[in-house]
Amino acid sequence: MSTVQLTLDEVHSLAAETLTRHGCDDENAGAVARVITDAERDGCHSHGLMRMAGYVATLKSGKVNGKARPKVEQIAPAVVRVDGDGGFAPMALLAGRQPLIDCARKNGIAALALVDIYHFAALWAEIEPLAEAGLCALACTSYKPAVIPAGGKKALYGTNPIAFGWPRKSGEPVVFDQATSVVARGEVMLAAREGHQMAEGVGVDADGNPTTDPNAILEGSLLAFGGHKGSSLAMMVELLAGGLIGESFSFEAAKRDNNDGGPPQGGEFILAMDPGMFGDREGWLDHSETLFEKITEQEGVRLPGDRRRTNRERNLRDGISLPQSVYDKILQL
Amino acid sequence: MSTVQLTLDEVHSLAAETLTRHGCDDENAGAVARVITDAERDGCHSHGLMRMAGYVATLKSGKVNGKARPKVEQIAPAVVRVDGDGGFAPMALLAGRQPLIDCARKNGIAALALVDIYHFAALWAEIEPLAEAGLCALACTSYKPAVIPAGGKKALYGTNPIAFGWPRKSGEPVVFDQATSVVARGEVMLAAREGHQMAEGVGVDADGNPTTDPNAILEGSLLAFGGHKGSSLAMMVELLAGGLIGESFSFEAAKRDNNDGGPPQGGEFILAMDPGMFGDREGWLDHSETLFEKITEQEGVRLPGDRRRTNRERNLRDGISLPQSVYDKILQL
Repeated sequence: MSTVQLTLDEVHSLAAETLTRHGCDDENAGAVARVITDAERDGCHSHGLMRMAGYVATLKSGKVNGKARPKVEQIAPAVVRVDGDGGFAPMALLAGRQPLIDCARKNGIAALALVDIYHFAALWAEIEPLAEAGLCALACTSYKPAVIPAGGKKALYGTNPIAFGWPRKSGEPVVFDQATSVVARGEVMLAAREGHQMAEGVGVDADGNPTTDPNAILEGSLLAFGGHKGSSLAMMVELLAGGLIGESFSFEAAKRDNNDGGPPQGGEFILAMDPGMFGDREGWLDHSETLFEKITEQEGVRLPGDRRRTNRERNLRDGISLPQSVYDKILQL
Repeated sequence: MSTVQLTLDEVHSLAAETLTRHGCDDENAGAVARVITDAERDGCHSHGLMRMAGYVATLKSGKVNGKARPKVEQIAPAVVRVDGDGGFAPMALLAGRQPLIDCARKNGIAALALVDIYHFAALWAEIEPLAEAGLCALACTSYKPAVIPAGGKKALYGTNPIAFGWPRKSGEPVVFDQATSVVARGEVMLAAREGHQMAEGVGVDADGNPTTDPNAILEGSLLAFGGHKGSSLAMMVELLAGGLIGESFSFEAAKRDNNDGGPPQGGEFILAMDPGMFGDREGWLDHSETLFEKITEQEGVRLPGDRRRTNRERNLRDGISLPQSVYDKILQL
């Protein structure tokens, strides 16, 4: 496969310039380019430049507001609400992050409700800054129906990822980010692009028959991880990122969406807690290190996010290799 | 199998009297008897009278304080902390529930940190009253190592259940409660008692070899549900119910435990949120009903907790059938 070598600065410029050409102002373009660059930096290609086509499509179709000015509201003593003004999620998140951190440090726990946003990025990148600020954080968001409720035949839930982060003494937090489907839709898209088959048990085709063909799964449905348990968690995400914050469930988001190839309008729920305010004021950081030591002392066991950190070190040094086809597609845009 | 027929009042008296004979005062005995009765009422036998032997063992060994007087502290504006005084969890929970509800209604979101408790009950019964009070709630607790971190060989995590509840217009909330292991330890104990085999992929024996023998699994380890995803969630529960609130991780609880057959000392984390304070002040309850309709309109799909509700209706009317062996064992106690 022929590839193009790019530094991370070049990734950022490529993304930002493409977005501004399609109607984003500098601030919105910069916010989105940042999450795309961070995804490429960490080897998370499914959420990197590969998504540019989708971002651009939503700007072209006029669905997303490229000049969004999110409005932050302290809606309850421990709840911050950000109206994303119909823009991309990273912009709303930038507006809400510090208010969330301040609110958590004041109350011990706080929630951030992001509404009227278009979410197309990875959650780990949103959790990491909160954990780096010394907070325990959890985030989830829904999308459009892609996952079948356990026992059923028709997709109803989004892939509904849940991400969680915990601060570490090194300053590099432990962060996991996992779809409640067996695999994330981004991984299926990547397999379709690269011509790989998926494992069995990942999804079904449009008629509900098991298949390993990524294209057939993209037209069909994914299965929840761990059967009814993953399905329950997917329902929980619908309720947190939709029902709780007054935003759409996946099936509602799909109904309203123009299917331009980009994300639908939806919401996101983020939770932040200050462990120093729960009782173990001095010792909690050292205490949690004893758990991480126990986890990693077993051969074959890694902490969540370890692979991303390895990729990060390498890519910060060497830059990234982008498939020529993806690069050409972005230049065309 | 020969059985004894008991009304739910008889279940409660049997549990309460047995506990008071072994050193519980009326209040502590009543709190524990309540959760045991609720478990039997809902057909959740693994957390019902079957657990009496364990409760009694911890009183006999002097590990648990049967006369606990939990202390409630508003440790941060949105965090309530209850020191359980070394007693059974239901007593601490009774003390902390209303303060948690009040705190969530004041701040939009609130957390309850339960420490120095002995937790041996099902989480759904703790979530249900919060959801009945109109709150969205989440709870989790750890135990002693029983589950292997994904990729490893040695149990490190407890079965670490996560429970979640959401209010419904009917007044009967949707509640799920699921171990982060493929099956709960209680189910393995039940299979061992009843002589059933477990499914493949549930657990391994003491040497780390796959087995379907429940007794071998009880001596060995369980696997996390959904591979590394369930394993990440199990880690999250260790951090929430241990690291965050200044209580023990499962491996620490085990180290300190006297292995009398009852629960180890540990903690529990509970989250409560008032959906009316997140933005959709009037419509959230109706809105979530549209999701539940979509879920249940598919043939073969049930809402979490449906089976418990069916059991409840029947058992409230007919009482329960207890295996003679379990009944005899309790009478011996």
